Amino acid sequence: MSLFEKVVSLAKRRGFVFPSCEIYGGLANTYDYGHYGSLLKENIKQAWFKKFFEQRHDLFRIESSIILNPKVWEASGHVETFADVMVEDLKTNKRYRADHLIEEYFHNKGEDKVVDGMSAQQLQEIIDAENILSPDGNPLGKARKFNLLFETEIGIIEGEGNKAFLRGEIAQGIFLNFKNIVDSMSPKLPFGIGQAGKAFRNEISKGQFTFRTLEFDLMEFEYFFDPSLNDWKELMDYWQCEIYDFAIESGVSAANLRWRDHQDFELSHYSKGTADLEYKFDWGFKEMFAVAYRTDFDLKNHAEKSGQKLVVTYPDGKKVVPHVIEPTFGLSRFVTILLMDTYREQEVDGSTRVYLELPEHIAPVRVAVLPLMKKPELQALAKKVVGILAPLGNIEYHEAGSIGKRYRKQDEIGTPACVTIDFDSLEDNCVTVRNRDTLKQERVAIDMLLNYIQVA
Amino acid sequence: MSLFEKVVSLAKRRGFVFPSCEIYGGLANTYDYGHYGSLLKENIKQAWFKKFFEQRHDLFRIESSIILNPKVWEASGHVETFADVMVEDLKTNKRYRADHLIEEYFHNKGEDKVVDGMSAQQLQEIIDAENILSPDGNPLGKARKFNLLFETEIGIIEGEGNKAFLRGEIAQGIFLNFKNIVDSMSPKLPFGIGQAGKAFRNEISKGQFTFRTLEFDLMEFEYFFDPSLNDWKELMDYWQCEIYDFAIESGVSAANLRWRDHQDFELSHYSKGTADLEYKFDWGFKEMFAVAYRTDFDLKNHAEKSGQKLVVTYPDGKKVVPHVIEPTFGLSRFVTILLMDTYREQEVDGSTRVYLELPEHIAPVRVAVLPLMKKPELQALAKKVVGILAPLGNIEYHEAGSIGKRYRKQDEIGTPACVTIDFDSLEDNCVTVRNRDTLKQERVAIDMLLNYIQVA
Repeated sequence: MSLFEKVVSLAKRRGFVFPSCEIYGGLANTYDYGHYGSLLKENIKQAWFKKFFEQRHDLFRIESSIILNPKVWEASGHVETFADVMVEDLKTNKRYRADHLIEEYFHNKGEDKVVDGMSAQQLQEIIDAENILSPDGNPLGKARKFNLLFETEIGIIEGEGNKAFLRGEIAQGIFLNFKNIVDSMSPKLPFGIGQAGKAFRNEISKGQFTFRTLEFDLMEFEYFFDPSLNDWKELMDYWQCEIYDFAIESGVSAANLRWRDHQDFELSHYSKGTADLEYKFDWGFKEMFAVAYRTDFDLKNHAEKSGQKLVVTYPDGKKVVPHVIEPTFGLSRFVTILLMDTYREQEVDGSTRVYLELPEHIAPVRVAVLPLMKKPELQALAKKVVGILAPLGNIEYHEAGSIGKRYRKQDEIGTPACVTIDFDSLEDNCVTVRNRDTLKQERVAIDMLLNYIQVA
Repeated sequence: MSLFEKVVSLAKRRGFVFPSCEIYGGLANTYDYGHYGSLLKENIKQAWFKKFFEQRHDLFRIESSIILNPKVWEASGHVETFADVMVEDLKTNKRYRADHLIEEYFHNKGEDKVVDGMSAQQLQEIIDAENILSPDGNPLGKARKFNLLFETEIGIIEGEGNKAFLRGEIAQGIFLNFKNIVDSMSPKLPFGIGQAGKAFRNEISKGQFTFRTLEFDLMEFEYFFDPSLNDWKELMDYWQCEIYDFAIESGVSAANLRWRDHQDFELSHYSKGTADLEYKFDWGFKEMFAVAYRTDFDLKNHAEKSGQKLVVTYPDGKKVVPHVIEPTFGLSRFVTILLMDTYREQEVDGSTRVYLELPEHIAPVRVAVLPLMKKPELQALAKKVVGILAPLGNIEYHEAGSIGKRYRKQDEIGTPACVTIDFDSLEDNCVTVRNRDTLKQERVAIDMLLNYIQVA
């Protein structure tokens, strides 16, 4: 099994990630999160809010709607340009993304070709020049663009309602609330507005696990600045450092990361410069986080199309339309990246121990408290210990099964510490603390336990 | 201005809640959350997860998808029954919810009439009997049912895609993951599975602020039990107490709450007993939280329609289809309820002071740190104090404006404590701590500050 296959299997077995609607045969490119997956995702999100919002004083939170007025997507350019180029197998009528077929074709030839952002015509030319066929070996039809926004209708009677779109990115909700934040918070430039939430893309081609799903979690902020006071390249550098630090602090190893600047032809319609922080998957380096310089494209467009003034006013009355740097964090895929990147196998006494080397603030369970046996006096003391450790966050209590089996389970969900209560504990008021990574076991007085685990 | 109008105005002015897409004229029944609204909502959600998940060991978290396989909604009965009865003004062609028109009609007569859950025919009979007209005074057409689920299409080509629905409640995602949780967590009955997330309803009639919106946040769990071991009425009582406690702990005053049992005719298609915890709005008591006994309706339906076994197996091999009690918490409306219920006006020195009496763990900002003036030595000490208080959560720092104005702003967003750094602070290493509710100001040594505020 590849690392990826092992992680997908662990994710299901241990309750991190499940295919959605599985009892009904699933729904393509849709996943649900189980108990530990939800906790892991929550911890990442909280760490993100802490680092970028709570510990600074220049970023503001919002939470915008998923269903938006269609005018927003016209102004943003998404109705026109938020599209994939598709080609059809002329025999089976199956449809494929043109860029994927081309990349795979070159990958199989041992070449690395980037075609992101190419037009339908450019892709068509490559398909023609290389005579690329469908995966079933059949000729392909003409490359055509298809919009990725999910459509729905507001209003009750079919056909009479108002068309609306599910948001294809969460950034527009930020631009829409720019004026609200300026009016209610009176921020000084540079400042940021951000949110975490779901975005939706009507993807047709099969994704890989939580990569390329119909709905996915993003964390994103727009950092507004006055281009006459700040140089965008310097700000890009600054935010690239911050983004990179966040990845490392969350437990990803530097060896599997690289920055890649977008080439001109692959830039989005709104961007003058974009850099992707890519992760090294089994199938190559792919985008994990990104930072884009969106200029004043969005604020200008929205101001023009809504007739509202979207500016920051200086104390002297001077007005400026800020430019913006946008750091984006793919939360759904980051969950899987963390599972892959912290997955460890270790030979212990002739068998393989699997554990996740997650940082303490990211691990779904902070400490597991385990009475050695199901005896009332051990259970009582163990529950007292659970209470003592409560300030640390999510604490689990388990009394069923052999202690070895219970350790292995906690290893597989990445619990940094296990605390075992045995019969000696009743005498000496000490417990055994087992470290997930070193397997070192230490005897610690219950009085000192909270402090011991906090600083360990 | 009514209390409600004052709160809506405060919510906008101070950055709690804004109409969505406002620069484009808004989108009916859709709202966005600003900086303080997002923090308030987040704090409520975290308190909920803490009380019902972290501090117990019998509830599990999940996060299910918004776009679900349509089979789910057929099995759940929503495609058939998740509908409002609408009537049309025969002259203006405007559509109204029949139940709302009838309730308003009786309300104007000084009567309190509950018609929730009545059939189209029953509502029609009341309209006929009372000769109820539209708000414009015109005759009404025939009462007809309209489904509330938002529809969309998965797949790229219009008309060729697969129909899908946005979830109309978050409970189905829980039932769909029942088997996943049983398989991955091996829980013992009784146990619960819950989540917080968005639900969508294609509401046509105008709601009131964050009540009755197109998309809204729910927090919900299903508590599974063996009906041969637990009595559902006892469990209902138990959960009613817990739910009520959560409301009180979050800062709602008991005087504005009441429980109301659903009458038989208003029960949902899946329920054998439902009680609403209602809040006293300006326009009468309305649902805030609820608890429903859904029996084994959902698990049985999904088992039958999916062909999967949805059971819990006892160690002796005996299998049981659990029954379920469902506590539901309307998070979006709870945000507004908290704003309304903790809103205070107080005469101080001839002017009116407005403050929110929010509990410490719910208030968006825990402490505001305010140097008396913009002097480098005061700013430096104030920033040190910010660092000292960081463990308490979200700390704000403000140096602009008069101290009185800064206090008033913090009052309006419900900050429990303000810490002022003045010139004496540079000498005596003490600061002034101002209490939001009592307005008492105390001089506290910086060394003792963290401890003082924690226990205050």
